[in-house]
Parts: sequence; structure tokens; C-alpha cells
Amino acid sequence: MTTQELAVAFTDLCKKGEFEEAGKRFWSDEVVSREPMAGEMAELKGRAAVEAKGAWWYANNEVHGVKVEGPYVHGNQFVVRFTMDVTPKGQARLTMDEVGVYTLQNGKIVEERFFYGT
Amino acid sequence: MTTQELAVAFTDLCKKGEFEEAGKRFWSDEVVSREPMAGEMAELKGRAAVEAKGAWWYANNEVHGVKVEGPYVHGNQFVVRFTMDVTPKGQARLTMDEVGVYTLQNGKIVEERFFYGT
Repeated sequence: MTTQELAVAFTDLCKKGEFEEAGKRFWSDEVVSREPMAGEMAELKGRAAVEAKGAWWYANNEVHGVKVEGPYVHGNQFVVRFTMDVTPKGQARLTMDEVGVYTLQNGKIVEERFFYGT
Repeated sequence: MTTQELAVAFTDLCKKGEFEEAGKRFWSDEVVSREPMAGEMAELKGRAAVEAKGAWWYANNEVHGVKVEGPYVHGNQFVVRFTMDVTPKGQARLTMDEVGVYTLQNGKIVEERFFYGT
């Protein structure tokens, strides 16, 4: 599977709202997930930690809609843009605009790095 | 100047169509520009080479409009999305959808890496 093929398959699952399935299928067991903010979510290592982060996120955000654009491909990396209409627990409804940069190794995602819109 | 500040200033210039000025102001003299395709444009090193690439591109593409979205920021990197309505010389008018991932060092852009939409 080329980077292009994996990127399209991963993004297609995200477009269907199947984010967990996309991770299950394409993350390396040693995947590292990086967020821009400081704190305990800034860098998580390993599939179990990254899956737990996803579960935490879904438990703490009500998702009204997600627009997924991409993938954009270069070498062993690809980019996906996520525009999310969500209500974080106890907060006002808002739009999150972010991109993920995914790095592949041996046909699996070894790093996902999220960038936040300003 | 933080990554955030530089990213916003760079992107604001791009939004005004001032791509050359954005490069002049924020590229390191040792900037490396990477495109996903094979060939002589795949990797260009140094300000002179990267400026020449820009000049080549403008000479070979008629630009009807550009939409610039971003920046998206993480650590010492930021991402900008470009949706361009162009007519490449001798070809049909088309829409190019791509993102650039920019890496900073000492307050300058040391790498720009372009990803193409599929």
C-alpha cells in the first residue's frame, strides 16, 4: 500500500465518521500522538494511550458535525483537515478547525501531529 | 516573534497575494523547498534557488485567484492551505489544492514542504 493509498483509505474512513476504525486499522502499535498545547495530552505514546485519548475526547465533546478534507500527500507523510462543530462538556458550542500531519513507516502511522487554526 | 506571530504575518501576506514578499521576509538564506513530485523541482536549497522557483512558477502559470487558509500552528511548525485557480502555460484552467508545512528555526523558515490534494 503506497502512502497515497493509505492516506485515501484513512481519510475515507474519517469522512464516514469512522475515526476509531481509521486508527485501529492504520496506527502502528508504537504510534505517537502530538497536540500543540502543553499538558498531559501534549504527547501520548503507544496505541493504548492514543486510543484512550480518543475515548476521552468523545466522552468530553458532543460532536454535531465534522467536515474532513484531504488527504494531501508528500513522500511518507499526508495531511488531513478537520473542521468540527462541537460542544465541549460545560462549554459553548464552537467550531474547531485543525489539521493533522501523519507520518508513515512500514505501512503504518507512526506519528500524528495536530495543528490548530488561529 | 513566536511561531504563532510569524505564521500569522506570513499567512496575512499570502492572503494579500504578496507571496514573494512573504518569502523575502521570512525565509532563512538556507531555506529548503520540497515538492512531492520527482524531478529537478523536488528539492531546492537556498534562497536564490527558491526565489528562482517562484519566478519560474509565475512565468508558467496564469493565476486567476488564490484562497489562503490558516495558519495552523504546532511548536516550531505551521501549515497553510492554498486553493489556486490557475491556467498552467499550454494547459487547461484547473484548481490546485495544496498545503504547505513550514518549519522554523531561529525565527526564519528553514523548510517549506508542499503536499498535494488528491
